[in-house]
Amino acid sequence: MPRVSKAIPLHEAFDGTLGLVFDPTAPDEVCAVVEVRDGLCNPFGIVHGGVYSSIAESVATASTIYRVHSDDRRSAIGSTNHTSLLRPISEGATHASGRVLHAGRTSWTWDVEFRDNERRLCATCRVTVAIRGYTSPPAADGSHDEPA
Amino acid sequence: MPRVSKAIPLHEAFDGTLGLVFDPTAPDEVCAVVEVRDGLCNPFGIVHGGVYSSIAESVATASTIYRVHSDDRRSAIGSTNHTSLLRPISEGATHASGRVLHAGRTSWTWDVEFRDNERRLCATCRVTVAIRGYTSPPAADGSHDEPA
Amino acid sequence: MPRVSKAIPLHEAFDGTLGLVFDPTAPDEVCAVVEVRDGLCNPFGIVHGGVYSSIAESVATASTIYRVHSDDRRSAIGSTNHTSLLRPISEGATHASGRVLHAGRTSWTWDVEFRDNERRLCATCRVTVAIRGYTSPPAADGSHDEPA
Amino acid sequence: MPRVSKAIPLHEAFDGTLGLVFDPTAPDEVCAVVEVRDGLCNPFGIVHGGVYSSIAESVATASTIYRVHSDDRRSAIGSTNHTSLLRPISEGATHASGRVLHAGRTSWTWDVEFRDNERRLCATCRVTVAIRGYTSPPAADGSHDEPA
Repeated sequence: MPRVSKAIPLHEAFDGTLGLVFDPTAPDEVCAVVEVRDGLCNPFGIVHGGVYSSIAESVATASTIYRVHSDDRRSAIGSTNHTSLLRPISEGATHASGRVLHAGRTSWTWDVEFRDNERRLCATCRVTVAIRGYTSPPAADGSHDEPA
Repeated sequence: MPRVSKAIPLHEAFDGTLGLVFDPTAPDEVCAVVEVRDGLCNPFGIVHGGVYSSIAESVATASTIYRVHSDDRRSAIGSTNHTSLLRPISEGATHASGRVLHAGRTSWTWDVEFRDNERRLCATCRVTVAIRGYTSPPAADGSHDEPA
Repeated sequence: MPRVSKAIPLHEAFDGTLGLVFDPTAPDEVCAVVEVRDGLCNPFGIVHGGVYSSIAESVATASTIYRVHSDDRRSAIGSTNHTSLLRPISEGATHASGRVLHAGRTSWTWDVEFRDNERRLCATCRVTVAIRGYTSPPAADGSHDEPA
Repeated sequence: MPRVSKAIPLHEAFDGTLGLVFDPTAPDEVCAVVEVRDGLCNPFGIVHGGVYSSIAESVATASTIYRVHSDDRRSAIGSTNHTSLLRPISEGATHASGRVLHAGRTSWTWDVEFRDNERRLCATCRVTVAIRGYTSPPAADGSHDEPA
């Protein structure tokens, strides 16, 4: 885990704001669900595009951190996030499922798909997560990617 | 504005959840600010990557809708969002400034930059917004991009 | 097909420069192959990252044009292309396979994966293709996305 | 420079295939030009979208390698490339100009803009380049991002 000056309980952090709930029963993918509510929508009543990017970032980054920290105490931090909005959701829930495309020494690449309650594909995100050594945490010197 | 079954007041929608405040005094760019608070951070106390994507989506989409609706009553909806995370923010505020790179008949492309209180570049997003005719609103048939 | 002042035979166009060969036998995906040669590599002898973006653009755009033109004489043109480079290829061939994630009225979204001769995933591209009516061809007024 | 089994002269590599010519006179940006010819176009006679991604990849990666190798003998390799196609070019030349948005210890982020002979913005690319230590070259173990 990165060295931090501050640790925020998950339910008080942005995941809590989103109402993100991970599903521990999915064997091969990382699954999570968010219930639609007004506070996650745009003014026209459909889920805000940024909500998909946000969930994808959490799914990909948290899972990478968990895996690389368990393995050899490295950490990870989001690098790039490319989101395609395909079909709006205005009620029910959005169901995210993430799978790793590439697990490298210095970066991991994820696909995170979003479906509505009818299982229709509504958005898809490709997230690249940078891997950091335990001795070079992202928060140490105020930089995601420590300057040279 | 798109035909909608439901209109949510801005402060009760996702922009309100983020605490997004637009700065109407910027002449050539669309500027907005969000104060950092625990509920927008990851558990390590830095602003969650999805917050940048979300603000960028709002800045680009709201501004495009406003402009094309004023001009000829068309609407707009987010299509793709590419976010690069460069430097974390753990306190103060994140200041967004958006500028249009391309204003076409069927799509607009935006750059949205994020700086901390010391004006350091912390993230940058490229957002493509699809333009829709007033008669083909995004919410009408349940699709961002109406199926053929 | 778009109205054009000039039609270039495929083998004299960029697909010919790349040596791109489509495989008509794949039933559910669009498959194509390019043999590695020095003229497609960077100076270090590995396939240039732009080659993957280029093949993906051809696979996604050509297939979309073919489908929408057959259906109702619309056309299509590339909008955004997001490429992730995962593992270099220095010999043999790169095998592309593309599948449609979303086929909308105004845009199509594709995933194109690249594998080496050992079937290892080496790159992956997400391509968004904009659909155009036959009466508003991309080349007509000098714009991919006709200005307002 | 990465350890390689093979070094290809630049004019015989993909840059030569594209006809990419760097302009050494630009002080603050990395500038390059490619003359339009049939072999770089799609069958409709406009510059193929992949050509922009390819030039951007070369501009960003070559410049990063040059800088980090001069500084401390590290190397660099392309990670992600996000290209937005805005306006087609069918004759003359495409003029690329690249500027660094972020120069970190482990990644650099670039913007590369493309203009036609009339200086109109025709495409724009955001490229993330991963920095590698001299002792972990990209070609050493057959991986862009060396597997764990």
